[in-house]
Amino acid sequence: MSYFKNFMKANRAYVDLHGTAHLPIKPKTKVAIVTCMDSRLHVAPALGLALGDAHILRNAGGRVTEDMIRSLVISQQQMGTREVVVLHHTDCGAQTFTNPEFACHLENVLGVDVKGQDFLPFTDVEESVREDMELLRKSPLIPDDVEISGGVYDVDTGRIHEVL
Amino acid sequence: MSYFKNFMKANRAYVDLHGTAHLPIKPKTKVAIVTCMDSRLHVAPALGLALGDAHILRNAGGRVTEDMIRSLVISQQQMGTREVVVLHHTDCGAQTFTNPEFACHLENVLGVDVKGQDFLPFTDVEESVREDMELLRKSPLIPDDVEISGGVYDVDTGRIHEVL
Repeated sequence: MSYFKNFMKANRAYVDLHGTAHLPIKPKTKVAIVTCMDSRLHVAPALGLALGDAHILRNAGGRVTEDMIRSLVISQQQMGTREVVVLHHTDCGAQTFTNPEFACHLENVLGVDVKGQDFLPFTDVEESVREDMELLRKSPLIPDDVEISGGVYDVDTGRIHEVL
Repeated sequence: MSYFKNFMKANRAYVDLHGTAHLPIKPKTKVAIVTCMDSRLHVAPALGLALGDAHILRNAGGRVTEDMIRSLVISQQQMGTREVVVLHHTDCGAQTFTNPEFACHLENVLGVDVKGQDFLPFTDVEESVREDMELLRKSPLIPDDVEISGGVYDVDTGRIHEVL
C-alpha cells in the first residue's frame, strides 16, 4: 500500500484552507535554511515561517554538499536571498554509521561497490554545523557579504540553540 | 540585520507548544518526499504530515542529484523508508534560467567560471518529475521494490496533481 494516495487525500483538505493567492517567487526574508531531512523537524513552525518567507533546503544531515551550493547559488542569484542558516539536530541519522561500515552494508544488500564515497556522517553535531558554515564562507560561489548563522535543533524539545 | 535572531525568538514560542517527547528516528510512514526549496511550499501541512511521519528532502527544483541519492540511501538503508514521492511545483525558480546564461551571470557577478556545470533548470514541470522518477528507478542504489510516485504542487492553490 502506497502512502502517496493518503497524502493526496490530506492535500484536498489543505487546498480548502489554502485558498487562491499568488505569493512572489522571491522569499520575503531573503533567508535560505540548510537543514536535515529528519521527520521530527518541521522547519516552518519551528522557526515561525509563514508561506513565502524562506527557502528550505534539506538533505541527509543538512550538509553543505556540491548540490547544496548549486541550490544556494540559484537561491541567491535568481531569487535574491542574502542569508543562510545551517541547522543540524540532535539524534541525527548521520550519527548512526561510518563510511566503511555503510559501504560494506551496501555491498551486501545492494551488490553495489561505493567504497571511497563519502556519505557525510558525523559524530559531534556542533562541529558539523561549524564545518558546514566554514564550507559556505570559503566557497567562491557564495558572496562574502552573505550572512551565515548556525544552530542545533533538539528533536525532543523543539528548542534551537545557536552555534558560533 | 539578520533574521536568525528573529527565528530564534519564534522558536521560543514553538518550544512551549512542542513539549518534551521522544519520537523514533525512523519515519512512521516509511516515505521520503523529494521536493523543491521554494518558500511557498510548506510540505508538512500540504501533505498532512505529523511530526515523525516522513523524511523531507529539498533542493533547487526538487531534482534527483547525486546528493539526493546519497540522502535517500541513508533514508532507506539506515532508517527504513520504502517509498519516494517526487514533488515539483508550478512557477519554479528552476524555470527562470538556462545553464549558459546563468554561467555568464555568475562569471560577471562572482568572477567564477562554472561553464559546463549543470544547474538543473527545466521548462516542463511534469517532464522534470518524470525524468527524476526515472533516475530513481534506474539507480542501482535504490531497490526495485521501493515505490515511486510523482506530483506537481500548485503554489497558487496548494493543490497537488499526480504525474504518471
